[in-house]
Amino acid sequence: MKEIPYKIYLDEKELPKKWYNLRADMKNKPAPLLNPATMKPMTENELEAVFCKELVKQELDDTTAYFDIPDEIVEFYKMYRPSPLIRAYCLEKKLGTPAHIYYKFEGNNTSGSHKLNSAIAQAYYAKKQGLKGVTTETGAGQWGTALSMATAYLGLDCKVYMVKVSYEQKPFRREVMRTYGASVTPSPSMNTNVGRKILEKHPGTSGSLGCAISEAVEDATTHEGYRYVLGSVLNQVLLHQSIIGLEAKTALDKYGVKPDIIIGCAGGGSNLGGLISPFMGQKLRGEADYRFIAVEPASCPSFTRGKFAYDFCDTGMVCPLAKMYTLGSNFIPSANHAGGLRYHGMSSTLSQLYHDGLMEAVSVEQTSVFEAAEYFARTEGILPAPESSHAIRVAIDQALKCKETGENKVILFGLTGTGYFDMVAYEKFHDGQMQDYIPTDADLQQGFDGIPAQPEF
Amino acid sequence: MKEIPYKIYLDEKELPKKWYNLRADMKNKPAPLLNPATMKPMTENELEAVFCKELVKQELDDTTAYFDIPDEIVEFYKMYRPSPLIRAYCLEKKLGTPAHIYYKFEGNNTSGSHKLNSAIAQAYYAKKQGLKGVTTETGAGQWGTALSMATAYLGLDCKVYMVKVSYEQKPFRREVMRTYGASVTPSPSMNTNVGRKILEKHPGTSGSLGCAISEAVEDATTHEGYRYVLGSVLNQVLLHQSIIGLEAKTALDKYGVKPDIIIGCAGGGSNLGGLISPFMGQKLRGEADYRFIAVEPASCPSFTRGKFAYDFCDTGMVCPLAKMYTLGSNFIPSANHAGGLRYHGMSSTLSQLYHDGLMEAVSVEQTSVFEAAEYFARTEGILPAPESSHAIRVAIDQALKCKETGENKVILFGLTGTGYFDMVAYEKFHDGQMQDYIPTDADLQQGFDGIPAQPEF
Repeated sequence: MKEIPYKIYLDEKELPKKWYNLRADMKNKPAPLLNPATMKPMTENELEAVFCKELVKQELDDTTAYFDIPDEIVEFYKMYRPSPLIRAYCLEKKLGTPAHIYYKFEGNNTSGSHKLNSAIAQAYYAKKQGLKGVTTETGAGQWGTALSMATAYLGLDCKVYMVKVSYEQKPFRREVMRTYGASVTPSPSMNTNVGRKILEKHPGTSGSLGCAISEAVEDATTHEGYRYVLGSVLNQVLLHQSIIGLEAKTALDKYGVKPDIIIGCAGGGSNLGGLISPFMGQKLRGEADYRFIAVEPASCPSFTRGKFAYDFCDTGMVCPLAKMYTLGSNFIPSANHAGGLRYHGMSSTLSQLYHDGLMEAVSVEQTSVFEAAEYFARTEGILPAPESSHAIRVAIDQALKCKETGENKVILFGLTGTGYFDMVAYEKFHDGQMQDYIPTDADLQQGFDGIPAQPEF
Repeated sequence: MKEIPYKIYLDEKELPKKWYNLRADMKNKPAPLLNPATMKPMTENELEAVFCKELVKQELDDTTAYFDIPDEIVEFYKMYRPSPLIRAYCLEKKLGTPAHIYYKFEGNNTSGSHKLNSAIAQAYYAKKQGLKGVTTETGAGQWGTALSMATAYLGLDCKVYMVKVSYEQKPFRREVMRTYGASVTPSPSMNTNVGRKILEKHPGTSGSLGCAISEAVEDATTHEGYRYVLGSVLNQVLLHQSIIGLEAKTALDKYGVKPDIIIGCAGGGSNLGGLISPFMGQKLRGEADYRFIAVEPASCPSFTRGKFAYDFCDTGMVCPLAKMYTLGSNFIPSANHAGGLRYHGMSSTLSQLYHDGLMEAVSVEQTSVFEAAEYFARTEGILPAPESSHAIRVAIDQALKCKETGENKVILFGLTGTGYFDMVAYEKFHDGQMQDYIPTDADLQQGFDGIPAQPEF
């Protein structure tokens, strides 16, 4: 067996030329998006009022297994990809585990996360369609940064609605986006009908992804030459993010390594869906078996405590409905610091896989996540984002289990981003002022009450 | 000729196993450090009161060309090195220049800069000597972060004196250092005699590297089991940083590329000295010729307007004196945002090379630096540190000259770090509130008046 380096960098020529569409290999396809007015499946035409044409095609296509990555996007990818697959030798040693731990690190670009993979794709198709610009929401700020980088590169306008709690906790994120020429508005805002309505009802709200989505969609659909783009949840995003898993698999295959457990944090599912895609494809085709674990915050437990139902993707109920694990579009999560994991729903694709028993999910509490984050930073050198640290927590837990049992399992996890803009949260943790929050059943029931009557078709 | 990828990553096995000591090839050696009490060259014994033993050996040795990198340090390097050498295809295209532009990017580690290369070396020798911990100063915060990462990894205590202006402008830097277990004090502070004296004289001072150095040295020499470590200026630091140039040269050689112009920002000289080392070695040995350009801020112009003289390395005059280009140890630079370039002096080695006409220097103004930074961020994707952006400014200027003349020169510059913790400065720039500051001759004269009478020996 070849000696495995600390960091496996693929050659530029090994950069995937096609995205992989996991849905093509799913027996039970994710349920279609519904029009909130008619409760019937959204047509291509209807979706094109909100999304770019090419992206609508990608969104609806659940049979084509591979999509060519346009040359212009490949050129952009070359600025920061292939991303390294890192063998966590130092972490293994410090834990004293016989497990082998690998992580795919997506933080080595200015957006600080994997979000750039889909941002450049979505901006590219908007440009191709001749649009003026795009609108979007951002939670932790990573998607907004990624999109502003992509739009700056292509010369498009970019309007970002940023979840208020993140806007306040991450003032410097706004400046990064401004460096790339984007406009940034804290959400809920007075810019939109939806925002004004929410502020009236919940004046002190710290916002949520669901609410910011509503505002961005309203802004796009009421301004000529704009479309809405989204950094997670959607099938198209999982398609673009498949590049993470494809690269990881190529790198592992080169060294003859097969992971036993694949772990990713899950907010809307963009990173997890991308990371697991080619591996899950093998599992679906009966070619190989893997254990997949989605990790979510205990404060926003869509998979582990949510319902599998058609629900609104946004708080304002202006977006299509998706069938997914959901806490209800009215669920407003506590100010958990992992802003990127505060979404009430989950990717339909991942929801279907989870529902079919092809994937597991666990929820973890904030303080234990930050303990893992600090331990990891001191051991592996990289300061992780709180979101990514959910995966670290469970990877460490699994590695410690291996220590108990003596099994030398191979663990792969997604290190989606860096925590440079999360130092307010780290400060709270250092000062012992971080609290765990687990919603009560009554809290959840409030959210569930907002789930609409389920359509029959 | 082989096609050149966007990013050239050396294989882990190509990681240099030896540091290169540029002084060994210099005909005119840098002048020795002087004892401030006797004004005679510092002995090994005297230096060991302040610095670790092995580091003193490295500091004084100007004849050994190569030093083995200890295995433990190589293992640490593998976590983030080799760093990429990037071909700036997008920048070339946007500028429309026939020049070929390469940059060695040292920002892809949590310290955010090249400083980690020397931090791990210095922490390693402190540990080997059985010390409890180390003290240091930090300007922009990158060296402090780097040192705290290295000491956390090795289990050493770490006390950081941070230049006040940076401490205030970069609150989150402090939290990164805390994440790695360091204690951070804004300088000047009331912790030391030197700090108290300076605060008395200049109550509103925003601090300087020279002052923070004095405090850290005093702290180390008055506490059992501590030594002082320094992130720049010293010969030992240039030795460790030679890894930047060695990797860059190996990468270029692989593709048969020879740079015409090599550019680096210069505060104390750690990055520039490291980047140019192997190339300058060739020049000194008459094997090849290159143009070297040091770039410094117009607000702190040690090379371009300073004097070549023996001077104190620190404001408190507790450190040895070095012969260097200096603005005088009493020179307190304006609150230029490139905190890492606010040092009154310059590496003795680089000073000697500059004095001997082997290297050029230019100074650039802050706003033009930030213009270059934003242009670069939007074009190459990477958000650069203000310090690094000094080199970007001049690299762009040189590339534009090539556009005029039609010459296809090869430009190599050092992109020493990322600007994630510099968003306050970027914000000022975006808001049009950034000002240029050029000291008058009278301002400089004040500093020069503090340069001591020159020794004769």
